[in-house]
Amino acid sequence: MMQPAAAELDIHLRLLASAPDKSAAQVIPDVVLGDYHDYEVLTKAAEGADAVTFEHEHVPTEHVRALIDASYNVHPQPSALLYAQDKLLMRQKLSELGAPVPRFAAIESVEDARAFAKLVEGRVCLKARRGGYDGHGVWFPSAEELEPLVEELLSADTPLMAEEKVALTRELSVLVARRPSGEVKAWPVTESVQREGICAEAFAPAPNLSPELTERALQVGIQVATELGVTGVLAVELFAFGAKQDAGAIIASASGAPGMVVEEDIAVNELAMRPHNTGHWTQDGCVTSQFEQHLRAVLDLPLGSTEPLAPITVMSNVLGADEDPAMSMPERVRAVMERYPEAKVHLYGKDHKAGRKIGHVNVVGEDVEETRRRAHDAAHFLVHAQWAEDSNV
Amino acid sequence: MMQPAAAELDIHLRLLASAPDKSAAQVIPDVVLGDYHDYEVLTKAAEGADAVTFEHEHVPTEHVRALIDASYNVHPQPSALLYAQDKLLMRQKLSELGAPVPRFAAIESVEDARAFAKLVEGRVCLKARRGGYDGHGVWFPSAEELEPLVEELLSADTPLMAEEKVALTRELSVLVARRPSGEVKAWPVTESVQREGICAEAFAPAPNLSPELTERALQVGIQVATELGVTGVLAVELFAFGAKQDAGAIIASASGAPGMVVEEDIAVNELAMRPHNTGHWTQDGCVTSQFEQHLRAVLDLPLGSTEPLAPITVMSNVLGADEDPAMSMPERVRAVMERYPEAKVHLYGKDHKAGRKIGHVNVVGEDVEETRRRAHDAAHFLVHAQWAEDSNV
Repeated sequence: MMQPAAAELDIHLRLLASAPDKSAAQVIPDVVLGDYHDYEVLTKAAEGADAVTFEHEHVPTEHVRALIDASYNVHPQPSALLYAQDKLLMRQKLSELGAPVPRFAAIESVEDARAFAKLVEGRVCLKARRGGYDGHGVWFPSAEELEPLVEELLSADTPLMAEEKVALTRELSVLVARRPSGEVKAWPVTESVQREGICAEAFAPAPNLSPELTERALQVGIQVATELGVTGVLAVELFAFGAKQDAGAIIASASGAPGMVVEEDIAVNELAMRPHNTGHWTQDGCVTSQFEQHLRAVLDLPLGSTEPLAPITVMSNVLGADEDPAMSMPERVRAVMERYPEAKVHLYGKDHKAGRKIGHVNVVGEDVEETRRRAHDAAHFLVHAQWAEDSNV
Repeated sequence: MMQPAAAELDIHLRLLASAPDKSAAQVIPDVVLGDYHDYEVLTKAAEGADAVTFEHEHVPTEHVRALIDASYNVHPQPSALLYAQDKLLMRQKLSELGAPVPRFAAIESVEDARAFAKLVEGRVCLKARRGGYDGHGVWFPSAEELEPLVEELLSADTPLMAEEKVALTRELSVLVARRPSGEVKAWPVTESVQREGICAEAFAPAPNLSPELTERALQVGIQVATELGVTGVLAVELFAFGAKQDAGAIIASASGAPGMVVEEDIAVNELAMRPHNTGHWTQDGCVTSQFEQHLRAVLDLPLGSTEPLAPITVMSNVLGADEDPAMSMPERVRAVMERYPEAKVHLYGKDHKAGRKIGHVNVVGEDVEETRRRAHDAAHFLVHAQWAEDSNV
């Protein structure tokens, strides 16, 4: 999805892909084929480039360091990426910086787990420190389940941490970009809706977010990008709790003490240092998309305007259904175009697989509910070949 | 510029290019190299495609007909394209349809020219019937120059027509798209500013255009697309005269009689059957760009929304200067990004050549003058490595 911006800006992209049929290889002429675990392959792809960047966090850190030692200009750098890779280090660092985080602890033994559970009165969220995504590597054990689970995971050499389970009312995301020379720009705060641990929808700007909390969320994003030295796009996923529908409920506050919360507040959930699913709306709803901005940032070019183009933009993910409908994808796209001329369909050129992100739909509009209805119905049809309104799926 | 939309919609593009370094070949992996005058080459490029289309009108008509006879799905079809290729046939057809056109005549002899000059009281615009573009093939001869010029051109086998020179006050453009199955959609009417016969700037929606004339212009666009059976994007370039600043001046009206014109009125100037320079603003100022719409139209897919995303979008062309400045283009882009974070820079990957269109800049905004200033200044810097405001260029 960086390719359109690169083409317009006369930025030459070279892609490292594992196979010629990978989706990005379908639209980028200059492709190096190989395995990103292989340092020789990495140098072949990086040779002569003004900047080297990633679309995921899994390139071995020792290889990234070796590239830097060999004078390749790599962004983001391992010193920042570390905090997107290891959730415990992230929590510790953010806590040091004074950013709002839930209470947390390293879990290296069953005793650690027991002590933490006592501290947070059983509201334990257990996480693998590394490698989790889309709900993988996250557990919410009951009091009985906790200790056997910790034992099992530790004996399988899964490094663990725990944090206080937050009674969240919604999830927000702050997307910022930062250049090596220090400039930082934030997009409007986004609200995301997760289903089964996977981002299903995003709304930007986040509806009904107070100006104060908007400002606070943006400051957290800018602070994290700056203090961690992030280069490129950074997504700070936030829990929001209190306020709105749930005002008056007893929930945990960010400061740790449970109490009556009436004002909406936030805590950092996760960090991602790359263009992020909650930022896909920027492709059609913003002057500068996150993909263009990421390119500008890693090349240390001045950042583009992050002004939104509409009162509301809604993104709805196209996630592979359990069974792929008989109607072909091009026929589904045709039906969506017919019903929703305003829908911006983005497909990734990937084959069907249940639960796989194979595309998304953006719709800009004036009214949150109506815009959401359109984006959701369009994405639903691309998955099920049935309108959401006509089905119970 | 169709490539970004194609990638997002999972539409596979195959490009016919004359050389591997042509700008489109830099961003489209599937390239057939060859000469579009060669029918074998055309069939190689067209093989297996759902639709075949062009980015210019110069593919030999007999080859296009042969492709259609061989059951290739070609859009636009020669029966429509004819009217974008031959200005006399266009004038005759539009005149038959009742669309507003200046008075015109076929010029096959010096006598024809003399008679027409008398009819329009010397306000003669002479045009080559075929092959003109960007001011080439258009002459405004004085009374003394007319006859020798006609003699010279006819003896060089240049088929000619003449039309009444219109005292235009501005130029407008109606951009529409039409599918084979008949659906037509129009974008907001655009005002364009030409310098030395070349489009320099475009403003959309056209500022200060009355609702009545807007409606009339859109109806002309839709009528022409429908009656001529155009498929794909059609640009109808319009002369506007009367009204605005020049109210009260004696100018020619579309009906032919000179008189006091107070209302702004329009006449058709030229037709182009492809994405058009006056429609480049749609890339950043509209829900659906002309490039996406062209793809949808030639594939007979439902057309996308043509709603604008901002009160005003200004496009400013980047035309190669007489001398290419010493500062490199990437450095110029960096400077523009620094000063105008809202500028959308589009470069075509072409080398410098004086007067060549090498890119354009789009800016969306609220205020016409301020938005124009930004787009113009940005494009000016990309050409001259100097801000318009600091120079007299």
